[in-house]
Order: sequence, then structure tokens, then C-alpha cells
Amino acid sequence: MAVATITFADRLASEVERKQSQLVVGLDPNVDLLPIELRGDVARFCCGIVDAVAPHAVAVKPQLAFFEALGAAGIAAFDQVCLYAKRAGLLVIADGKRGDIGSTARAYSEAYIEGDPPRADALTVNPWLGRDSVEPFLGAVRRGGVGIFVIVRTSNASGDLQDAVLKDGRPMWHHVAELVDEWGSETAGETGLSSVGAVIGATHPRAVADARRLMPRTVILLPGVGAQGAAVADLTRAFQSGPASALVSASRSVIYAFKDAGSDYREAAGAEAARLKREIWAASGW
Amino acid sequence: MAVATITFADRLASEVERKQSQLVVGLDPNVDLLPIELRGDVARFCCGIVDAVAPHAVAVKPQLAFFEALGAAGIAAFDQVCLYAKRAGLLVIADGKRGDIGSTARAYSEAYIEGDPPRADALTVNPWLGRDSVEPFLGAVRRGGVGIFVIVRTSNASGDLQDAVLKDGRPMWHHVAELVDEWGSETAGETGLSSVGAVIGATHPRAVADARRLMPRTVILLPGVGAQGAAVADLTRAFQSGPASALVSASRSVIYAFKDAGSDYREAAGAEAARLKREIWAASGW
Repeated sequence: MAVATITFADRLASEVERKQSQLVVGLDPNVDLLPIELRGDVARFCCGIVDAVAPHAVAVKPQLAFFEALGAAGIAAFDQVCLYAKRAGLLVIADGKRGDIGSTARAYSEAYIEGDPPRADALTVNPWLGRDSVEPFLGAVRRGGVGIFVIVRTSNASGDLQDAVLKDGRPMWHHVAELVDEWGSETAGETGLSSVGAVIGATHPRAVADARRLMPRTVILLPGVGAQGAAVADLTRAFQSGPASALVSASRSVIYAFKDAGSDYREAAGAEAARLKREIWAASGW
Repeated sequence: MAVATITFADRLASEVERKQSQLVVGLDPNVDLLPIELRGDVARFCCGIVDAVAPHAVAVKPQLAFFEALGAAGIAAFDQVCLYAKRAGLLVIADGKRGDIGSTARAYSEAYIEGDPPRADALTVNPWLGRDSVEPFLGAVRRGGVGIFVIVRTSNASGDLQDAVLKDGRPMWHHVAELVDEWGSETAGETGLSSVGAVIGATHPRAVADARRLMPRTVILLPGVGAQGAAVADLTRAFQSGPASALVSASRSVIYAFKDAGSDYREAAGAEAARLKREIWAASGW
């Protein structure tokens, strides 16, 4: 059983190089926004997006909330989409922001990044319950092949917790960034990148630069581009640790591009993904 | 549509009085621990527990992670168990510790505490993403009939984030407790209790007393009794705001009681629930 498994970060790095892309397409299938003929078939909509963006993106990020809102049928759709995306050569980052303690955290880890094969290649994880809530996920990461992205500083405006000022004058999220750096120290692969990633909202360029400094080995996932208003050109510093050291995630601006473009949803998503991919690669400076 | 809906906290208070119970039974169906003949049927196991504990508990708390680990079939089981528990006269607290921003948070709220009827009466919510991540859930609470329990101070040992010391010398979780008190201020029902509850680990009796002081109107959900080692007698102060102002949650010690008792799992769960109910009521001083 001691098969050397390539780490998640190394798999990601190899795909980034091959596709010259650091684009992640978020799959947020809000039923009300789908093309009318697909409102009853979220899986088909998402698989259409996968076909369209597969040449341009390194990963898709299905947002579990939208699948959960559809009940058991939604979860079946989630599974179908994850499998379809993997077969299309995309990595799958399940965006669930899960976090709990003890046997419950183990159950979440088993649900998403364990199993043979696991449903997803990586899972977003909420750190609020502390180190021992993250430990079961770190166990899965250490066994190899999968990753996590810890929610460090999100793209929204309300920093009630993340920006709370600690005794030493730093914002709370800096403390979390240091924990992420520490948690990832054992998981660095051949590229030097750790498979314990971090989510940092792209809407705060200064925070992105701070995050890069605090977590030099960490793959930073940057949501907030597109519908949320962040500019790709402001993200250059995130890529200082290598071409795969940051990923830029766009959701609504890609999957609902047809609304502005007036064309087929796949065609519009493919065109927007191709455009974003080039823009991000240029901004990354690699 | 301006029908006056009884608040979650008032419904809870009325059930607490009627049953003279503040016991919540956690449904954590870890397949490996179920009676052998039920390992393929988590829903049947949980419904058996519901039958056994319904006379003694005010609510069940299905832990989503264990259902999610079983994929779409697990979610179908979750729905079946929630419906069964409601019909047995129990309130349902979905333990998902969800938290996200914008349209995603709305999707989580729709998934669990909206709809006609909603799948659950209340949902546990993770506050790490701040006020605007909690807002969609607060909207559902304000519309009436449902509640949330915000994760303030958990029962595990690692307080990396929750116990971080702020500039003013207080632990981070005190700041979150104040936010919960504020968020709940508009939702107080006739009993004076708010439907924005808080989760406080019962394993820290001093924290329980602090939590009561910081959140006088809040229903405090206290996990950690039983398998995690907290003593019911240490929890008296949590009940200072009324008989329904605190709930004590036990999971493994009830649902797996058959392992020590050597009897039918329902019989063992019912006996342990009855015992705990009496112990908690006595400790509550009401």
C-alpha cells in the first residue's frame, strides 16, 4: 500500500503548466438563473459548462450549497458533475466550507476527499473550530493526492471575525494564515507547494500580498473576480511562489455569460473562460 | 401573507414546558457503530432512535456529515429522518455548521430552514465569514418559525481561533457572543428568548457561565455531555434565563447506549434519554 502518490499541489502545478492556466470555474447552479430549458436539469447545465471550459480552466469548483438546496437529487447531480469534470481532465475543488470536530470532521473528510476514488480532489475547509477540526482533513492530505483550501480571508465586506484585531495588533486572519502555513509544512511536494491551500478574497489586493508573504508555500485560491468586482491585474503578487501558487476563481461571470452575450450558454462560457485564462496568465508574469 | 408565526424559541419553550425536558439527542449515524443488522439502513436506525427518545427529548440534532458521507442516498435518509422526527413531535436541529457569503448563504438557508415546510426547524451556523454571511439565515429567522444556532465556543480542546486574545484582552469568542446577542435582538418572542441561539461546549463550565451573561436572551445549545465528558451538574447557570434558555445535547452516549447495556438499541437509547432528561431538568433548577 506504500505507493508514492503525487501530491495535490504537484498535480495542480503540472496541469497549470500544461494548460498555461490558473483559472478555476465556480459551478454555482442557481436554478432561477439557468437557461429556461435546463432549469430542471442542473447536472446537464454543469456538464455543458465543463465541456466548454475544460480547455481553458485547470479546475472547477462546484458550490455544494446550490446542490444541497435541491435535496438528494441535487447531491446525485453533484456526483455526476464531479465525475464528468474529472473525466474531462479538470481537477475538482468541492466548495463546502466544512468544519467540525472529532468523528464529524472525519465523516466530512470521508465524504469528499477520501474513498477510492474520492468524489473531489480538494475541499474548502472552515477553520473556526481550530486545529483539531482541521486534523482529519490534514490526514487525508498527508496520505496523498488530495488537498484542502482553508478559508482565511473571504471576499465579502464584513470582517467581523477575520479582521478582529488581536492583542499583538494583527488581524485575526493573519494568525489563521500562519496556522495554514504551519499545517502545510509537511505536505510540500516536489514543486515546493503545499497541498494545504488558502482562500483569500481577490477583492482585497493588499490582503493578497500579505497572504503571499505569510504563506510562501501555500496555493492561494482567489475568488471574487468578475461578478464580485476584483481586477485580475491587481493579483500579480499572489503568483510570486510559482505559476501554480495561485488560482483565480470566477463563477457567475463565466457560467452566466450567456445572459450578456446573447449566445448559447456553453459558447459564452467558453469564450469568457478563454479570455480570463489569458488575462490571468499575463497578470501572473509567468 | 402577514400571518403571525410563532417564533422558534417560543415553540421550543412550549415543548420544554410540556415535556419537562431540555434534552436534545444528536443523531450521528456512524455506519461502523450501528447494530450489524442495520448497517445498510441508517434511516431505519435513526427512526428507531426517534421512536425511543420522543417522549424524553425536545429535539433531535441530525449531524449532516454522517448523512453526506453516504452520498445522495444519505441525504434521502436525512430527509426521511427529519420528517419522521417532526411527526413524532420533536423539533429538528440540522447540525451542518454551514456558512458562506451572498447567494451561497441564501442557498444554504433555502436548503435547510426555508421552504414549505422547511426540512429542519433550526440549523447550526458557522460565523467565521462574518455578519453578511449570517444575514440570509437571520432573514429566515425573522420571517418566523425557524431558528439558528451560531457556533460560538465548541467543546473541543483546540481554541486556536475561538480563544485568540483580542486587543481589549477578551477571547475572540466573547466578541462573537456579543454579535449573536445583537443579531438576536429583533427576534425575541413572547417568552423573551431569541431564535438566534448559540452553541457553547458543555466541556467548559466557566465558558457556559460567561456565555449566559453575554447572551441573556439566547438559547444556548450545550453539546459535549456524555461521550465528551462534560457533567450535567456543572451546567446550572446556563438555565438562568428560563427553562428553555439552554438545551443539553448528547449523541453517542444515547444512540450507542446498547453497546454497554447489551439490550435492544431502542430500549437502551430510551432508557438513557429518560435518565438524562431527569438529570438535566433537576440541574436546571426549574
